Amino acid sequence: MDMKTDNWLSTAARPVGLIIRQKDPNNLEMPFDRLHEFITPSELFYIRSHFPAPNLDPLAYRLSITGAVRNELSLSYSDIRAMPSRTCVATLECAGNSRVFLAPPAPGAQWELGAVGNAEWTGVPFSALLEIAGLDDDVCDLVLEGADRGVPKEEPRPPGPISYARSIPRSLAMEPDVLLAYQMNGEDLMPDHGYPLRAIVPGNYGMSSVKWVTKIVAATQPFQGYWQTSDYAFWDDSEGIPVRRPLAEMKLKSQIARPRVYERLRPGRPYTIFGAAWAGNTDITEIWISLDGGASWVQGDFVDPISRHTWRRWKYDWTTPTQPGGYTLLARATGADGRPQPERHNPNFGSYVIDHPLPIEVFVTGS
Amino acid sequence: MDMKTDNWLSTAARPVGLIIRQKDPNNLEMPFDRLHEFITPSELFYIRSHFPAPNLDPLAYRLSITGAVRNELSLSYSDIRAMPSRTCVATLECAGNSRVFLAPPAPGAQWELGAVGNAEWTGVPFSALLEIAGLDDDVCDLVLEGADRGVPKEEPRPPGPISYARSIPRSLAMEPDVLLAYQMNGEDLMPDHGYPLRAIVPGNYGMSSVKWVTKIVAATQPFQGYWQTSDYAFWDDSEGIPVRRPLAEMKLKSQIARPRVYERLRPGRPYTIFGAAWAGNTDITEIWISLDGGASWVQGDFVDPISRHTWRRWKYDWTTPTQPGGYTLLARATGADGRPQPERHNPNFGSYVIDHPLPIEVFVTGS
Repeated sequence: MDMKTDNWLSTAARPVGLIIRQKDPNNLEMPFDRLHEFITPSELFYIRSHFPAPNLDPLAYRLSITGAVRNELSLSYSDIRAMPSRTCVATLECAGNSRVFLAPPAPGAQWELGAVGNAEWTGVPFSALLEIAGLDDDVCDLVLEGADRGVPKEEPRPPGPISYARSIPRSLAMEPDVLLAYQMNGEDLMPDHGYPLRAIVPGNYGMSSVKWVTKIVAATQPFQGYWQTSDYAFWDDSEGIPVRRPLAEMKLKSQIARPRVYERLRPGRPYTIFGAAWAGNTDITEIWISLDGGASWVQGDFVDPISRHTWRRWKYDWTTPTQPGGYTLLARATGADGRPQPERHNPNFGSYVIDHPLPIEVFVTGS
Repeated sequence: MDMKTDNWLSTAARPVGLIIRQKDPNNLEMPFDRLHEFITPSELFYIRSHFPAPNLDPLAYRLSITGAVRNELSLSYSDIRAMPSRTCVATLECAGNSRVFLAPPAPGAQWELGAVGNAEWTGVPFSALLEIAGLDDDVCDLVLEGADRGVPKEEPRPPGPISYARSIPRSLAMEPDVLLAYQMNGEDLMPDHGYPLRAIVPGNYGMSSVKWVTKIVAATQPFQGYWQTSDYAFWDDSEGIPVRRPLAEMKLKSQIARPRVYERLRPGRPYTIFGAAWAGNTDITEIWISLDGGASWVQGDFVDPISRHTWRRWKYDWTTPTQPGGYTLLARATGADGRPQPERHNPNFGSYVIDHPLPIEVFVTGS
């Protein structure tokens, strides 16, 4: 082959697309070895869908706010765009991210490392809308309902189709960075990311950041919908008898982006292990790396400063072993309270909250 | 950040590791957008395992050849390495490759595009061993049994654990490129690829290339094992009444490696669409690309010459549309008999043989 014509064989300029975990509806993840910048390019941001993406016309779009409010609202898309906006950066992780590492395997999309991303979100503070609506004193929960609709899969399940819906507590809804967002990384949302409007709930697993939001209901009792009882819920046994509670705050977690699983490395060479760590409402203060499957740990360095609700990229300058063979790398972050990630997955979380150190097996080759 | 220290942020030198579809046992695929060379680097070659990889000691290893033969054999690894060797290049595709594109979803590992690879295999021709063993005249089938063992999943299934086993017809076993291979791309097999010895059956789906082979049985009746009746089998309705037959020859297929799903492309720019096409025992003569979801087709160019049992890389020099939006790309190959890939998946193949053109959705952005 003529080497002059070979340049189209080279790797395309980064970033490059997504990995399909499920199709129809789209459940696509970032190839996490493509982690570079602090902000995840929209092209690489994971897509988690329960049902096909609704096709909403922004001219016909309405957002209703009803329930225990003094002023029921029905807002158009242009009403919302005309309000004062706020921009924040937040890391969202799907509660099922890293499910493929569970043993035995758990049902659901077999996410590896890429159902997490860190983007810049622009929209209206949820609190601004709630102040206009005027919440009754006894409101405790805000239910966010999307336009995506279908029959869910987990048992027990309702007999017919339902819309995706999730609530957040009143106190959280009033936090300034909880947004009803219309832009991601400075561009209007893509259909798969919730166009024209989605919630952004920093610090919570992605399931709270309801996409395609069309209805908000102010509730005076905790909402007991499907996605906080059957699905996206866990057994809380902290009080002796296990009780079913909705998943909410993201747990402390770290991931290795490079090397990738089954990557081959040359012996006795410098190699910078690179990754990210995040949490819900905790600062991440330390990152520890194991190069021997967890037998010993060395400390890595953060690339990004501490910043609530965003990840911190980190690195560790390694010299690869001179001995060829298989090596298992792990990363483990520590939070501001001094507590590291747990050693094992807690089965009370079922197929969610996979927050233990994840093994990355690599091979050091002979030359 | 100091730009001088930024070089460790750059993409690692290609190739780079695998995507996990299932863990324990390992089912890992190539990130197919990393397709470059004709030969797939071992690091990128997919791993399909039914059970955990057995840990075979080459000093203790024996290969037995029994059944309807004049000379039963028990060969050591060094016996096999001492025999005259043969090297061939063959494309292997898992019969379930591209399963994630099936609608509705089918059970099993949700392979996307990367459960296919083209490697150089070195070993002993199967025919040479069979000539030493001396097949009885009425032998019709050669059963290859691996050392990997467990309880299979599909129904109907045997009550207890069994070893992975598959047969090939006598006529195929005598083909010169059917090997018992101990090397892949010039290196001893990795454990996940069948160390110390595996079958290579060019032209067949990967399931015939039994890994960790320890037993060969010459049979005078077609073998009716689990992996050719319950699993890796299809309903052949070519004769009116459907009958269960083992999958065997790979079907004609093509795949787009670049762009990747959900890649963003700039408008009105040159972009070379790149991929590969392969088949079982048919030459691939044409490659057609659709840039509009199948409404129209244009012809691409092959990078590699026709070569039986290996893929042909191909390319198409595209100018991206000036109109921003979503575009669906497809590739469809034509065989020497003038027949293209089918338009749709044939449900008689169940969750296997996904050989229709696969949609790659990309976005042309505004600038």
